[in-house]
Amino acid sequence: MKKLRIAIDAMGGDHAPVNEVSGAILSLRETNNRFQIDLFGDETLIKAEIKKQNAEKLSIEVHHTKSVIDMNDSPVTAIKQKSDSSLSHAMMSLKNGETNAVINTGNTGATTAAAILILGRIPGVSRPTIAAPLPTSFGPVLLTDIGSVVDCRAQFLVEFALMAGIYSERIFKRTRPRIALLNIGSEEGKGNELAKETFERLKKIGNEINFIGNIESKDILKFKADVIVCDGFVGNSILKFAEGMVSVLKERFKNYAEKNFINKLLMGVAQFPLKKVFGDLNYEDVGGVPLLGVNGVVIIGHGRSSPKAIKNMILRAEETSLQNLPKIIEETLSRYQNE
Amino acid sequence: MKKLRIAIDAMGGDHAPVNEVSGAILSLRETNNRFQIDLFGDETLIKAEIKKQNAEKLSIEVHHTKSVIDMNDSPVTAIKQKSDSSLSHAMMSLKNGETNAVINTGNTGATTAAAILILGRIPGVSRPTIAAPLPTSFGPVLLTDIGSVVDCRAQFLVEFALMAGIYSERIFKRTRPRIALLNIGSEEGKGNELAKETFERLKKIGNEINFIGNIESKDILKFKADVIVCDGFVGNSILKFAEGMVSVLKERFKNYAEKNFINKLLMGVAQFPLKKVFGDLNYEDVGGVPLLGVNGVVIIGHGRSSPKAIKNMILRAEETSLQNLPKIIEETLSRYQNE
Repeated sequence: MKKLRIAIDAMGGDHAPVNEVSGAILSLRETNNRFQIDLFGDETLIKAEIKKQNAEKLSIEVHHTKSVIDMNDSPVTAIKQKSDSSLSHAMMSLKNGETNAVINTGNTGATTAAAILILGRIPGVSRPTIAAPLPTSFGPVLLTDIGSVVDCRAQFLVEFALMAGIYSERIFKRTRPRIALLNIGSEEGKGNELAKETFERLKKIGNEINFIGNIESKDILKFKADVIVCDGFVGNSILKFAEGMVSVLKERFKNYAEKNFINKLLMGVAQFPLKKVFGDLNYEDVGGVPLLGVNGVVIIGHGRSSPKAIKNMILRAEETSLQNLPKIIEETLSRYQNE
Repeated sequence: MKKLRIAIDAMGGDHAPVNEVSGAILSLRETNNRFQIDLFGDETLIKAEIKKQNAEKLSIEVHHTKSVIDMNDSPVTAIKQKSDSSLSHAMMSLKNGETNAVINTGNTGATTAAAILILGRIPGVSRPTIAAPLPTSFGPVLLTDIGSVVDCRAQFLVEFALMAGIYSERIFKRTRPRIALLNIGSEEGKGNELAKETFERLKKIGNEINFIGNIESKDILKFKADVIVCDGFVGNSILKFAEGMVSVLKERFKNYAEKNFINKLLMGVAQFPLKKVFGDLNYEDVGGVPLLGVNGVVIIGHGRSSPKAIKNMILRAEETSLQNLPKIIEETLSRYQNE
């Protein structure tokens, strides 16, 4: 069997290309070169890092590209104007069948735009969606959409539910994943116009999915559903609030410790339970967020991704490539549309 | 000067009427009967609690009412059908000028409906809004709307911004309060249709308010703005997510401690920094959330409000009654509409 090949845009992240190269090396060492990694970006920088880490013998191929799409670039314009970017080249390699998945830690909007323009949407998909696996004590819960579609119609949310349900089943191995609609109350009939209409549509699909009704955001982290659908503006607001809350708590613990010697001692002890309790919520273990609805496996990571986080994204990309998700999504959506 | 009178629906909360009566007693003892409290509800239960706490001499007046609107009642229907409820009677007393403010810890939707139907909207207000003061290390930040209006138009958000700005200035004593628009990016031009249009409108108002642009939800708790406006579906989702996250963290600390003896010891020490860090985020000190845009002072509290939380709501209601907010709101909105 031919080796799987995973393309990485090595230039997009905050610590590019060091973290991207390091993550690639980690993954290949851990799996004993089980797959090949294609790194796209500045050849000189990438090769220097590979050499520094004595990793010349790992199955890495470097593809030199000239320009970089950074965080400040406007997504669609950047893809159209910077056709020689590391991101576009990585995506083209997937489109042409030279690689099996693309990983990017840079500009999320640009990655989504590149995937739509270069790979194309799966037939039947109105809008591709980014679904974030949120860590809970019992395993990840998929929240979709988290910011790629901010003026959703009910039809979009229904498609998100179907696609994320497939991902939850195939990648997280959930049997008949519980699909819930994020709402401001748990009773039927609650919510804004979008939520009310989406509720009706999901209810009508019936057996195709295991729709369990509304869920309030206070229950998101309580593992009461496997998939939670919402408009991207809402999902993005929740996710970023969580990030902000953790950072405020960290800051407060730091300030507490700096107040005096006794506090410092207390915090020295408290760090053990704190690490344990907050550690479980670590984004590094999540393995990136999938972009669902495009013709190919695309995994997006935080700009600040550590080498370990990138390694986990690579392993997730490998796992996802082994499933024929675009085909399953296409068949599921067409079945629903014929009903 | 005539004493201020504060009306309390004593029957709505989860621990009614015990917590409501206890909060009233606490506030009167602390202020040496500075104001009068009018309790609406079941006379027998309320008087028994007053007697139990030896509080017969405090300036409390009990008004017997027959029915109660509970959490399961549909707001508007309940107000129309249960005209003899404790909530309706409390609201009527404010309408008739017998009291100066209403406090309710029960069904939020019903309280809003009662306020709109009985007190009426302030001229120029399209939709009244509930603004939650979120505790931060530097003082409360007002997030509005948090769930009373879930299909907002840009005009509504502009009015929310103006009303919450006045509240922030008068009650939290902020000079030229910084007003921000919740968005999924900080740059101009970001967001959904609602956010984009609201941004343009707030920008146009110019000097009337200190509009500082977009804010992402990761910065909500970082005191970068005094007022943050968003659609009620979004605000509600964020607020409930925060609630859920705190409860998940508490649960995790508990599970950690229960694992073994060493963990229990570590948590025994860790509780000091934990209490300090999480204690600041205590909703008890927030003093309830104001309903802005109706003709009168209405303060809403959590169904689970403790006596201390209710006492703080009463003090906040007193403080708010001393400001002529409805008049100021009316004048500000009309000035803006004439521009």
